[in-house]
Amino acid sequence: MSTVTVACAQLELAVGDVRGNRAAAAHALDEAAAAGAQVVVLPELATSGYVFEDAAEAAALAEPVDGPGVTAWRAAARRHGITVVGGLCERDPAGRVRNSAVLIDASGALRAVYRKAHLFGTEREFFVPGDERPPVVETAHGRIGVLVCYDLEFPEWVRRVALAGAELLCAPVNWPLFPRPEGERPAEVVRVQAAAAVNRIYIAACDRAGTERGTRWTGASVVVDPDGFPLAGPHPEPERALLPAACDPARARDKRLGPHNDVFADRRPELYG
Amino acid sequence: MSTVTVACAQLELAVGDVRGNRAAAAHALDEAAAAGAQVVVLPELATSGYVFEDAAEAAALAEPVDGPGVTAWRAAARRHGITVVGGLCERDPAGRVRNSAVLIDASGALRAVYRKAHLFGTEREFFVPGDERPPVVETAHGRIGVLVCYDLEFPEWVRRVALAGAELLCAPVNWPLFPRPEGERPAEVVRVQAAAAVNRIYIAACDRAGTERGTRWTGASVVVDPDGFPLAGPHPEPERALLPAACDPARARDKRLGPHNDVFADRRPELYG
Repeated sequence: MSTVTVACAQLELAVGDVRGNRAAAAHALDEAAAAGAQVVVLPELATSGYVFEDAAEAAALAEPVDGPGVTAWRAAARRHGITVVGGLCERDPAGRVRNSAVLIDASGALRAVYRKAHLFGTEREFFVPGDERPPVVETAHGRIGVLVCYDLEFPEWVRRVALAGAELLCAPVNWPLFPRPEGERPAEVVRVQAAAAVNRIYIAACDRAGTERGTRWTGASVVVDPDGFPLAGPHPEPERALLPAACDPARARDKRLGPHNDVFADRRPELYG
Repeated sequence: MSTVTVACAQLELAVGDVRGNRAAAAHALDEAAAAGAQVVVLPELATSGYVFEDAAEAAALAEPVDGPGVTAWRAAARRHGITVVGGLCERDPAGRVRNSAVLIDASGALRAVYRKAHLFGTEREFFVPGDERPPVVETAHGRIGVLVCYDLEFPEWVRRVALAGAELLCAPVNWPLFPRPEGERPAEVVRVQAAAAVNRIYIAACDRAGTERGTRWTGASVVVDPDGFPLAGPHPEPERALLPAACDPARARDKRLGPHNDVFADRRPELYG
């Protein structure tokens, strides 16, 4: 396998407009495939939007993974032969509402459903947190792990994905805009850069564009390389954007850091407990 | 306690010139104290220099923690009422050579000796790695943890320091200069920023200036705040520099992230094992 083109499809979505969001995602997947993307990451809660009024609204917008949102993404994946990772407001088989992400392979098969384990802000009012390990899936486009947004801020959790063999970590995110000092990158991007570097993996974090019920999104989607430097993004403006980058899975399998070090072999897990 | 002024004393040192290095450190401590610093961090292996020819040279330059290097730092700490964290080439009580760091409090007392647990590059030829947990010491200037250089790249290890209650992590480092894309900060600095942010602590990493036997140092000392943004450094040039920053230990005790989150309480350690 040579390089794989991984793209974040940074979208503007609207809470409650399930049909409009579905159309926006379908359009973005078509556009990304036309631009040569082989792995496309959609934002967190791309089916429903994010800023719910209350739990009833979130529940009303939730859909199962065999519902119309994921079904449409699967059709696009099959049509274009692309791998898709996207976030949805899920009603799980037990009827609980989850902040989930799916991984769909290039045949259109649903290969993994991951439920966000670390809930942010008011999400606890709307979602039941996941309590399963993040998936790492062997695909035609490399070994891909999945996390959702705030999960990225727990180095232990990213480490699990990397130790399980992920070459690329795809993370749907919705980063609310926080103030930052002049000239600084968003802290979320810095954390993604560091997480990629300490694990020597690629990370594609796909953020939202625009504003939703007064919440401005950072629009800072990035694809970061195993040295921790952005290959694509962050876009200078928090607007709709496609951010593609060529990634080499072999580079992420090599954990060496110069001739004497290996970021996995150099760990001292016996001391960390 | 209000704010504490924490300073990195980024120095140019010379391998083998133990007396010259001692004089450079003494001068830097005097200068830092005169500038109002209350906690001063010196680089890694500040007694000996870094780029050893062989194990015999490292062993010849090693000194015990009651040797002249640490004794001089203790005198400066007592004279100025400052806390000092610095790195040394240590001959430990069993005669082994270690890449160590000491924490000296404002009375001049040696409060902790930490031995680098993650060895970088050719260091394994020179040093026995540490196998003890990093210290976190209650001082007049806050609760201070100590790590050395490559240790910072293991999120598990930084997490231990933070969970043990450190408000400030002081890390003597020697960052060899690696190429990086135009306009990017050194990846080492990015990792320090992320480590501070995910743990909501201050981190002061004190790097080297200049060049030693062909190894150029990055000269990227920084003091980073609990949001992950630099308060001081990195200096635009890898030269001798004093980098002071006002830190508020109370800010680092508060692990909340907005009204709904707490970066420690939100951890899911039951899932990380």
